[in-house]
Amino acid sequence: MKVIELKKTVTASNDRDAEILRDELSKKGILLINLMSAAGSGKTTLLSRTITDLAGRVKIGVMEADIASDVDAKKINALGAESIQVHTDGMCHMDAGMTRQGLENMEKNGLQAVFLENIGNLICPAEFDTGAHRNVMILSVPEGDDKPLKYPLMFKKSDVLVITKKDAAPYFDFDFEAAKRRALALNPSIKIFPVSAKTGEGMDEWEKWLISETEKHCNA
Amino acid sequence: MKVIELKKTVTASNDRDAEILRDELSKKGILLINLMSAAGSGKTTLLSRTITDLAGRVKIGVMEADIASDVDAKKINALGAESIQVHTDGMCHMDAGMTRQGLENMEKNGLQAVFLENIGNLICPAEFDTGAHRNVMILSVPEGDDKPLKYPLMFKKSDVLVITKKDAAPYFDFDFEAAKRRALALNPSIKIFPVSAKTGEGMDEWEKWLISETEKHCNA
Repeated sequence: MKVIELKKTVTASNDRDAEILRDELSKKGILLINLMSAAGSGKTTLLSRTITDLAGRVKIGVMEADIASDVDAKKINALGAESIQVHTDGMCHMDAGMTRQGLENMEKNGLQAVFLENIGNLICPAEFDTGAHRNVMILSVPEGDDKPLKYPLMFKKSDVLVITKKDAAPYFDFDFEAAKRRALALNPSIKIFPVSAKTGEGMDEWEKWLISETEKHCNA
Repeated sequence: MKVIELKKTVTASNDRDAEILRDELSKKGILLINLMSAAGSGKTTLLSRTITDLAGRVKIGVMEADIASDVDAKKINALGAESIQVHTDGMCHMDAGMTRQGLENMEKNGLQAVFLENIGNLICPAEFDTGAHRNVMILSVPEGDDKPLKYPLMFKKSDVLVITKKDAAPYFDFDFEAAKRRALALNPSIKIFPVSAKTGEGMDEWEKWLISETEKHCNA
């Protein structure tokens, strides 16, 4: 498993770089998904369960972006999935140039879907197009149902909201209906999947969406 | 309760601005504490409980910094404590100039301790001196014990680590000893208080520290 120290990319237009990367990946039949959330919301746990559940059906690779450490990439690697760890030199987001550097160092043979696990926070990652085909965000139950009010851009930019740690709901005052209503007010077309990667509850719907996106993409 | 839209500050040296602000506050006998954490880790809940517990003993004010919304400042205000909401124009941190703008708009009569509740993430806030006398960070149990490995700077810069949501420990695989060991490896002098603001467990030790810092500061 590789650890790559990314260099800052200085280009005229990140939006244009992102479009070019997206097109290249489309031509190769690889679906790139940008996964964003606060630190500790369960991105790696959701991916681990998804990879295990879909083994033999969707070949998934993961690019783990962090400031430091390689604990997440090691967890994914232990599942037998292709993974790479990238470090962002202190930056709180990934952009298209950085994503390209990571992908160039990844073994992509046969991969159908690559998740970019972005840096853990609800602010900067929402501001940069990474070249991904889909943006998916996680809100975990312990974080609270008021997050759409505080971090509106992240909810506006995401195609999917996965609400994780549903099994912990008895321990927290999390109002699922309020969270959904607030997210939909910002983004009426956002798809919402409440799940527990621990018990498996709700994973079916999320995985159906992922399979459908992968198939659409490969047949396009 | 006021909501202030902060302007970006452009100065030669944030570090110097921070020193000047810190000195001014010291002369007024006001202790400024910079409270940092990921989104949803329970900063406002910890402060609410602390304000209630210490009513009549320490007069606390709160500056709530967010990208959007005023839900946190309203919660603090409802407890009868002085609070102000500041918005950072999309920025993921507070600096000394922004902190000064917020303080200038705050009613400071009789306040002994002011908490700056920084923007919710474990990255950018650690990079800027706000002018605070003490840095306190929160790590909540649901976020996981691996966070010191991923966000080392935040742990290095903090005088105190409060581990919150201890009551939820039965629901999560959080190794308290591992978290402490990792934090202390980065910062041997960091003080660690595991608490539950919900049940009150451990709040005593944290509040004793706060009282002691306030007294030291006022007598200095």
